[in-house]
Formats: sequence, structure tokens, C-alpha cells
Amino acid sequence: MLTVYGDIRSGNCLKVKWLLDKLGHDYRWVETDVMSGRTRSTEFLAMNPAGQVPAVVFDDGRALAQSNAIIGYFGEGTPYVPADPWDRARMYEWLFWEQYSHEPYIAVVRFQRALAGKPAAEIEPRLMERGRAALDRMEAALTGGDWLVGDGPTLADLALVAYTRVAHEGDFDLTPYPAIRRWIGRVEAAFGIG
Amino acid sequence: MLTVYGDIRSGNCLKVKWLLDKLGHDYRWVETDVMSGRTRSTEFLAMNPAGQVPAVVFDDGRALAQSNAIIGYFGEGTPYVPADPWDRARMYEWLFWEQYSHEPYIAVVRFQRALAGKPAAEIEPRLMERGRAALDRMEAALTGGDWLVGDGPTLADLALVAYTRVAHEGDFDLTPYPAIRRWIGRVEAAFGIG
Repeated sequence: MLTVYGDIRSGNCLKVKWLLDKLGHDYRWVETDVMSGRTRSTEFLAMNPAGQVPAVVFDDGRALAQSNAIIGYFGEGTPYVPADPWDRARMYEWLFWEQYSHEPYIAVVRFQRALAGKPAAEIEPRLMERGRAALDRMEAALTGGDWLVGDGPTLADLALVAYTRVAHEGDFDLTPYPAIRRWIGRVEAAFGIG
Repeated sequence: MLTVYGDIRSGNCLKVKWLLDKLGHDYRWVETDVMSGRTRSTEFLAMNPAGQVPAVVFDDGRALAQSNAIIGYFGEGTPYVPADPWDRARMYEWLFWEQYSHEPYIAVVRFQRALAGKPAAEIEPRLMERGRAALDRMEAALTGGDWLVGDGPTLADLALVAYTRVAHEGDFDLTPYPAIRRWIGRVEAAFGIG
């Protein structure tokens, strides 16, 4: 059976859980606290040398890491990965943008505030600015359509919703972003996120 | 004809140029200095709302950004994107890792030192540490094989070589990384990088 190593508080890990649940895959979830040092253990590093969760391991020992690579692998051939090459490319554009221009701000501030307990006054202003810039860009994109790519939910929506729906835990106020707020509801409904 | 907006000093932009050249695509290169503010102009943002290079624009106005999404699009159906689903997934794992755990350290320090002229003493030690950790991981992977995925060059090698080959411009010493140094030569030869 598939084994998933993940921290249930991590949006990156939840992306994998949500997709596997939606697609009806059986798996064993091994809760892996990112603050415990377990992802830096010799045993874990032998499985994923990047020392990060999520990571999935198959019965034959093959292992795969990077949340967006994992959902890309399991999403292939489902309606959540467009068959059209151009739409696929745009989906991957959003996935790479998420990891480079969204997660390092929205997820990192939320981690510092909600999980590490850092006071708001100690959060780097640059992280808040870039996080808001990411939300601005999403709001503009979602003002023009219900989904990030094409006319149905894709992995782009799944990946971006993971930390956007908990952005408020990092003091990002979603009130000025009505298109994002409506989209969060749509994506949660589409993927059965509770 | 395809138009590529890129800064010739940027590894992210060079990935696109190298692949298009290797595959024999015709394109117009529009040199776009990332330090000039041009990527923040109204005109540029209308084309790529992320305000980043590289970005490619087709004759019909369709635009695509994110270096690894662009090379993924043009690489599809060539020997540089494995047909095997597992090898494809591992290629994407490296591509996401590159943007999250390699580029933000190796490329950022090289930018600060070589392009922005920051003195070595002012570089954040954390950036150097994480950059070396990325090189450590690559060295371990390349000690076991000639290429990052499978038994031939893929987009994973192309994407990772872009900033690894100029890591020394950010004061990363490649002397302790013999497998990486040999691999750089292999990847340059495979893609005709001069």
C-alpha cells in the first residue's frame, strides 16, 4: 500500500491527501511533525534526501517528493490535469508560481505566526508585501473566471487553495479579495475539502 | 514568430534559450533587463501579471511564464521529457526542487554578488548554507549516475545546470563536488551550451 509522509498542518501535505482522497486511492498516512526533526533523521533522508514532507513511498520502495510533482503524478489522466497541451502548460505555470511566489510568503508567514508562535510585530514586512502581491495577482486572475485554468477545477486550483484558505492565520486579510473568497468555496466543494 | 522576453544574464531565461536553440525553434529574443524596472511596466504586466522573465508570447497573443513551465511545454514529445510516467514525475520533482531549494540560494547569491555588486561580507550566511546543502544533495544524486533522471539528459539536468554552472560567481566553491563538475560538462555538451 502507498505510504504518505506528511504533516497534517501543512498545506503542501494536504494537497496530496485531498487529491488521493478525491481519487479514491488507498494509502497509509504517517504523520510527520516538521518541527520534530524527524525529516532530518538518517532514516527519512535515505527515503527523501531533500528532507521535506510530503513524500510518498510505494511498496517496491520507489519514493517521490515535492507536493506539486506528487499531485502531478497522481493527477495525470484525471480531469484535474487538462489534456490540452496549452492548458497543461498554464497549469504548470501556476504550480511553479505557487512554489516560488506564493508559498514562500503566504505559507511561511502562516507557519511563523500560527505554528511557531512568532508575534506579528516580528514578521518581516517584505514577506507580508509579497504575500499581498500574490493575492493581488490571484484576485485579478479569478475576476476573469471561475477557475485558474480553463473552465473546470485543476491541480492549479488545488495547489493554490491549500495555503490561500488559511492565509488569515498569517494575518493576511482576505476581505479585499472577493473573487478569491468565492473561488475558495468552489475549490473546496470541487475537491471535497472540509 | 515566437517572442521570448529574457535577461541573458539570468539562468532561468537561458534555460528557455538553450532548449529552443537545441530544438531548432525560431524565435525573437527581446532582451529585458531585470534591473531596469521594465518587467514592472504596465505593458509587461499586461502580458505577464507575475512581472517576471522569462516569458514567451505567441503570434496569437498567448503568453506563458515560469521557466520550468516553458521548457516543459516545449520539451513535451522530445527525448528531454521522459515518456515513462514515473521518470516524468521524478523529472518534475527535480524541477520543483530547483525552484524551491536551489534557485533561491544559488541564483540569489550569484545575483547579489555578480550583478548587484554586494560585498561578500554582506551576504546572509543562511543563503550560503542552504546553497551548499543543495549542492550536497546534487553531488550525492550524481555520484550514483550520469544524469539526474534515467540514463539520458532531461529537463531536470537543463534546469539545474543553469545556475549550478555559474555558482562560483556567488562564491560557491565547486572544488569539493567532483560529480557535479563532471555532470556540468556532460549537460553542456548534451544541450550545446557554450
